[in-house]
Amino acid sequence: MKSHRQELTFEVPSRRGFLNITDDVQRAVTASGIQEGLCLVNSMHITSSVFINDDEPGLHKDLERWLEGLAPHAPTAQWRHNDTGEDNADAHLKREILGRSVTVAVTKGRLDFGRWEQIFYAEFDGRRQKRALIKVLGE
Amino acid sequence: MKSHRQELTFEVPSRRGFLNITDDVQRAVTASGIQEGLCLVNSMHITSSVFINDDEPGLHKDLERWLEGLAPHAPTAQWRHNDTGEDNADAHLKREILGRSVTVAVTKGRLDFGRWEQIFYAEFDGRRQKRALIKVLGE
Amino acid sequence: MKSHRQELTFEVPSRRGFLNITDDVQRAVTASGIQEGLCLVNSMHITSSVFINDDEPGLHKDLERWLEGLAPHAPTAQWRHNDTGEDNADAHLKREILGRSVTVAVTKGRLDFGRWEQIFYAEFDGRRQKRALIKVLGE
Repeated sequence: MKSHRQELTFEVPSRRGFLNITDDVQRAVTASGIQEGLCLVNSMHITSSVFINDDEPGLHKDLERWLEGLAPHAPTAQWRHNDTGEDNADAHLKREILGRSVTVAVTKGRLDFGRWEQIFYAEFDGRRQKRALIKVLGE
Repeated sequence: MKSHRQELTFEVPSRRGFLNITDDVQRAVTASGIQEGLCLVNSMHITSSVFINDDEPGLHKDLERWLEGLAPHAPTAQWRHNDTGEDNADAHLKREILGRSVTVAVTKGRLDFGRWEQIFYAEFDGRRQKRALIKVLGE
Repeated sequence: MKSHRQELTFEVPSRRGFLNITDDVQRAVTASGIQEGLCLVNSMHITSSVFINDDEPGLHKDLERWLEGLAPHAPTAQWRHNDTGEDNADAHLKREILGRSVTVAVTKGRLDFGRWEQIFYAEFDGRRQKRALIKVLGE
């Protein structure tokens, strides 16, 4: 059995944004030397997500507007978490919709994906350095 | 260490539907010969989900109506993804609520489940062939 | 390859509540003797969740109120699942937002977490005994 651990770092210049990290994850799988296994990719923060969907700009606009409707940033006083001095309660909630992590099969050394699957890091509280963790297990 | 890969194929005749795939997944686990491990089951598409909940028809009606309220199909022009000529933006969003995949423990060769857990494939953009991937890792 | 299986049991005295189970999960990882691997933690029920977010009481109030807005308990007659005699349809829906399970990397025998990540069991239909499953795979 082999395992491989790697971090990715990001600094999204605005509060929210989506980054396609599929190639970074494939590079980590290749570096692992693992041919058959499972690959976990997770945000190491509680105000961002890792998710799999389409790399289509219109969809990303829809996702951002839709999440804003489900968990609005403003007025910030509506959320008790913001009583701590933070203004990011909505980011903690939005991240629950898209999820903390994805687990992807590795087959013959490749992310085992359908035609349109792409991995994204979704930032909901950016303008500072954040990290994602990649852990590959297999042989 | 052993690994096993298998695809399931579906063609849901309507736009939306839930299929209980628990027995299919157990058959894949049995075919793998793996006694102790983890089993990943994921949609290979970005407009459908794999999730675990109750096999109760009233709940499935609730899930469909609830998801339609959270991410409505119509009017299709409300979503920028549909500017590409698609009409399935809502399917990309609904799938984020139920999730892309489940990971299930395998113990003594069986899906290690509580009393009511059942695995479903949830279609949100059907009327064409779709696939789910099963990957079992363990020994 | 090693694997380890353990159950946690809970009885939340009210309908809804969040329990921080991070230390319990770390103890299971330590007991497993696994240094490098993956750790799955899942609810064994279909009306509760396991999720990762901040251990901040204001946020937990926000989460409860937010989920109640997205999937209201009352009026119970709005949900077809409750035609079976249950009153917990909303619990089945709320659990879809927070998710059934988390998968966490294990590195050098520890849950491989960012600074603020904590694991919670989220109960949406309490006042009776419930269980979560921990399965660790690795070596």
